[in-house]
Amino acid sequence: MKTIETCISPDLLDLHELANKTVIVVDIFRASSTMVTALSNGVNVIVPVKDLDECKAYKKKGWLIAGERNGKQAEGFDLGNSPLAYLDRALAGQNVAMTTTNGTRAISLAREHAAEVLIGSFLNLQATVDYLQASTNDVLVLCAGWKGKFNLEDSLYAGALSWTLGWKHECDATLAMESIYEQVNGGLREYLQKASHAKRLQNHDLEKDIDFCLELNQYNSVVYLSEEGLKNKNNK
Amino acid sequence: MKTIETCISPDLLDLHELANKTVIVVDIFRASSTMVTALSNGVNVIVPVKDLDECKAYKKKGWLIAGERNGKQAEGFDLGNSPLAYLDRALAGQNVAMTTTNGTRAISLAREHAAEVLIGSFLNLQATVDYLQASTNDVLVLCAGWKGKFNLEDSLYAGALSWTLGWKHECDATLAMESIYEQVNGGLREYLQKASHAKRLQNHDLEKDIDFCLELNQYNSVVYLSEEGLKNKNNK
Repeated sequence: MKTIETCISPDLLDLHELANKTVIVVDIFRASSTMVTALSNGVNVIVPVKDLDECKAYKKKGWLIAGERNGKQAEGFDLGNSPLAYLDRALAGQNVAMTTTNGTRAISLAREHAAEVLIGSFLNLQATVDYLQASTNDVLVLCAGWKGKFNLEDSLYAGALSWTLGWKHECDATLAMESIYEQVNGGLREYLQKASHAKRLQNHDLEKDIDFCLELNQYNSVVYLSEEGLKNKNNK
Repeated sequence: MKTIETCISPDLLDLHELANKTVIVVDIFRASSTMVTALSNGVNVIVPVKDLDECKAYKKKGWLIAGERNGKQAEGFDLGNSPLAYLDRALAGQNVAMTTTNGTRAISLAREHAAEVLIGSFLNLQATVDYLQASTNDVLVLCAGWKGKFNLEDSLYAGALSWTLGWKHECDATLAMESIYEQVNGGLREYLQKASHAKRLQNHDLEKDIDFCLELNQYNSVVYLSEEGLKNKNNK
């Protein structure tokens, strides 16, 4: 019997055993949603990097660079952190280096010890579920959180994933978030309006991004961490 | 406007500002429930200590010592960790030294920086709420958790407390747990049967303890940390 557990903050990851597990990193607003959208719209590879300076180095190699500060595209960058920039295959075939605050840290923590690292979002929930059902690995959802703290949208993704997988488990964090996902019953947007991060984004006029990040199953992609960076298993 | 926030693990406490706050330490199964029960039944003072050896030193001073290992009263100890031992003022007037695994650590972390430390349980929820309403301090609920991880019963107490206080706040962990408390709608016992810690206690035939720890508002006590140890504000 395969199991699922949830780590609600990267700061708690050392309490969890990662060996032989598939770790799904999730940062719903907006890094992981943007990664899934980009790779579902033909972007070739995404390298998540720590800061703006590290990102800029990729520019010289002909890559697109994505980064933002205070809700706006950073100066000298090609893209901000909005998933909407990648729609309609606008950037198909490109390589992208992307800075994220909470997401990058979670990814680099996970890659050290896990058997496999995936990137999760509501946009490709069912595709990820199908992939996990077919795998023999146990699963750990790693919520990027907000500056080390619990956040509602990433944890709720863990509940959605577990609820959809339907596996038995004994992880209290997963149980709690499954309860909420069941209670929300499709009304993700309405529920997450109360979340602190959604409020921060609303202050930056980013409602369209929020709405998009909370749409279920728009893409049939499975996004994973390869030697070169993040890729879509469905891309050749 | 006063605020409430929840820290779901002692391992995340350094992300929170404690100055001028009332910190409520909660370890529902069973340390904080036992402390509230004891002090509501006339016990004079409880000193929470780290381990069995430190606890034994109090025996020489004529104190009762409480401790357990693997669900049973530790050898040479007067009491285990069951709240039921203190009912009907069986131990009124006594001083007690008590070992707890997760609870003691949370209490000593909180006492360093907080304005005030209280001990929370479902058994004295309303009394604690009334006290907090009358105070000018902001509130932080510190869940003792289970070996650093999120646990369902302590977090659910945070939801119950916040829901009963009715304060506005922007803490995602508190929001999540309020949702569950609302959904559970009085059926704490049924909901928490799924919790990992409740299952561990059931394996030790401690169902009566679980049932007792989940009863609401049995006592009108406010339990706080004084220079001498834990005391009940209503005791003279």
